[in-house]
Amino acid sequence: MTKAEIISVGTEMTSGQTLDTNSQWLSQRLAESGIPVGWHTTLADDLEDCVAAFRTASARAGLVLITGGLGPTLDDLTREALARLTGADLIFHQESFDFIRQLFERRQRTMPARNRVQALFPAGAEPLPNPRGTAPGIWMKIGNAVIAAMPGVPSEMVGMFNDQVLPRLQQLGLAGGVIVRRKINCFGAGESAVEEKLQDLTRRGHVPEVGITVHDAIISLRILARAPTREEAERQIWPVEQTIRERLGTLVYGVEEEELHDALLRLLAARKLTISTAESLTGGMVAQRICQVPGASAFFMGGVIAYDNRIKQELLDVPAEMLAQCGAVSSQVAEAMARGCRQRLKTDLAISTTGIAGPGGATPTKPVGLVFVGLAWNGGERSLQYNWLGTRQEIQSRTANMALNLARLHLEKTGAGAPA
Amino acid sequence: MTKAEIISVGTEMTSGQTLDTNSQWLSQRLAESGIPVGWHTTLADDLEDCVAAFRTASARAGLVLITGGLGPTLDDLTREALARLTGADLIFHQESFDFIRQLFERRQRTMPARNRVQALFPAGAEPLPNPRGTAPGIWMKIGNAVIAAMPGVPSEMVGMFNDQVLPRLQQLGLAGGVIVRRKINCFGAGESAVEEKLQDLTRRGHVPEVGITVHDAIISLRILARAPTREEAERQIWPVEQTIRERLGTLVYGVEEEELHDALLRLLAARKLTISTAESLTGGMVAQRICQVPGASAFFMGGVIAYDNRIKQELLDVPAEMLAQCGAVSSQVAEAMARGCRQRLKTDLAISTTGIAGPGGATPTKPVGLVFVGLAWNGGERSLQYNWLGTRQEIQSRTANMALNLARLHLEKTGAGAPA
Repeated sequence: MTKAEIISVGTEMTSGQTLDTNSQWLSQRLAESGIPVGWHTTLADDLEDCVAAFRTASARAGLVLITGGLGPTLDDLTREALARLTGADLIFHQESFDFIRQLFERRQRTMPARNRVQALFPAGAEPLPNPRGTAPGIWMKIGNAVIAAMPGVPSEMVGMFNDQVLPRLQQLGLAGGVIVRRKINCFGAGESAVEEKLQDLTRRGHVPEVGITVHDAIISLRILARAPTREEAERQIWPVEQTIRERLGTLVYGVEEEELHDALLRLLAARKLTISTAESLTGGMVAQRICQVPGASAFFMGGVIAYDNRIKQELLDVPAEMLAQCGAVSSQVAEAMARGCRQRLKTDLAISTTGIAGPGGATPTKPVGLVFVGLAWNGGERSLQYNWLGTRQEIQSRTANMALNLARLHLEKTGAGAPA
Repeated sequence: MTKAEIISVGTEMTSGQTLDTNSQWLSQRLAESGIPVGWHTTLADDLEDCVAAFRTASARAGLVLITGGLGPTLDDLTREALARLTGADLIFHQESFDFIRQLFERRQRTMPARNRVQALFPAGAEPLPNPRGTAPGIWMKIGNAVIAAMPGVPSEMVGMFNDQVLPRLQQLGLAGGVIVRRKINCFGAGESAVEEKLQDLTRRGHVPEVGITVHDAIISLRILARAPTREEAERQIWPVEQTIRERLGTLVYGVEEEELHDALLRLLAARKLTISTAESLTGGMVAQRICQVPGASAFFMGGVIAYDNRIKQELLDVPAEMLAQCGAVSSQVAEAMARGCRQRLKTDLAISTTGIAGPGGATPTKPVGLVFVGLAWNGGERSLQYNWLGTRQEIQSRTANMALNLARLHLEKTGAGAPA
């Protein structure tokens, strides 16, 4: 099988000013298409170095993907280096020039004269259109190697790879068909527990591929299907997604980039219900996540941050005796905070958090990481306990997710009607 | 001047699984030492490819820094490739072996037999000790090139570069002396206003270098001094830091990684004062930042998130007539929120936020980005207005910083005693 080389051109990378993320992204896409990558090379803006590196690459690799060096300035040297290496002249391409000029016109700016060089291509090369910017790409062969030069701006590079380069690689039989991805997000069980339920799907060699990643106690299943067409890839994904959803049930809260607060607000909107928050341990994090969502103000009324026990009593009506007997970190106080918050703020639901975030504050019976989250609705209260391992920030963040999830599960269970 | 090449070895990078950040970090350090970097090369775990790349690098570069491929497994090939390229045997180094064995003993684990290969070095090479892990580094010459091979684990690589490699480069006269850095953080003025006050310092060629970066409206001045010794570098930095502090006055809130909430809590602790928060626009973000600091509970009592106007009235005693007349997004309401919060939560200070985070909610007179922050203390209230450009998250985050800064400035001005 042919090996690929990925080359990034730009002194901003060899000087350490900019981190090259294009090479990793392209490596992932090539790996998905079944093309192994043997080398990444990053070069300063130096013509001799570019010519030498392009020569080495086209001799040792069957596919060379170049990013960067296609801009209009004097230190953009990819065009010239490719021409120099192949001994070809740089030829003016009217269609590319017209497109660049129109781009400036649409932005109501005058095209600087120097942008004309972006319409020059080594003789025999094919221009790759770039609807996202002024730098067209270059598609050509050098010896036995296929060369694709793309802009260095990540968004332009990604678009050009997906729209222009990948289809050509597939046509040449270099890349194996179409890739479709699906991400399913879960909360409420450990990674190993989820993996156990899906071990027939996550084993190596399963088609489509199923991978598991974890972040802030959120477990994501990533399905990746390769097929000759998009339809076939989606036909692979569909039954696997259904199986995952059946086996995991309400552990699944959303797909793709959806977070727990997005899922909660979606359910609140569907049920036309309001919510408020009573936070100790998380100190405002639960509310702040809800408020990230545009339009949250229709369903989120507000909250109380009751860090001090006095505030728990005075603003949330937690009885002093309960605090003295059970301690602030207890299921009783978590439920009382939610109950008091719901009554004071007059919302349909209220959620609460209390616990020991550390590094200080632990007692012999209450270690760092012990947390309780509470929920109050018009039928009563409930709470959940957990003991996280992690840093102060991790404990706060995972507990915020726990509280959001408690409300989500309540809404999922109570169905489309009013909560029981 | 000699050019350097940085080589990363590992299929996890060419496959796109792992992003190589070592090359950027090393490029930055070399740039600071006055050594230009011509090439980054990333290789899969393949012996032939490693030998060929090391040969190319030692021919074109005067300094070759290699990371990765020094582990104990079969696909760790850097040692072997260096030996193969130079025709040297791999020689057992007792001292390195003893150190690796002791590392396992200290961790109360048995050393696997395969770790013995980590004590092998190409004949003539110098082992570089690694107190942070089992992989010693390799220091050698190939032709005219100086070679340093370091572990791929970033923390081990950073330690070895700073402790072993950089001093050797300085001794050889390749790297110019010692680098000392200082970061000074400001809030409360625009980047161009700060730059204007410091333009004699930030101009190219100034010694020491002074750079400006901005994140979330926090402006950081980065001073970088190069000198033969640490003392001399610090002597360069000191007067520049004093000049910056004199010219910027209370715009400066901290140094290095300190954030506004750290500075505020430091001042509250010094003055033995308590604070509470009344948030609309920021939805809990101000409180959540304060609660990130371990021990915040001694000075932060709690807060009210008054997203809905009803909550502003009922929990913060903002008069209904004021809300009707001035609107929730007004200096009057910001001050009333802070006053009500301070009284209800019985704290020395209270800070508040209100505004339009967008994307919806704008009116003809109140655009997206219009915000007010308020402060209440035992002598009254004040507020500040601003009009941010940015996304919902940016507007929320910058306004949270504005509120924290309003309290910080109050404490700075009122000195060590009780606030006036």
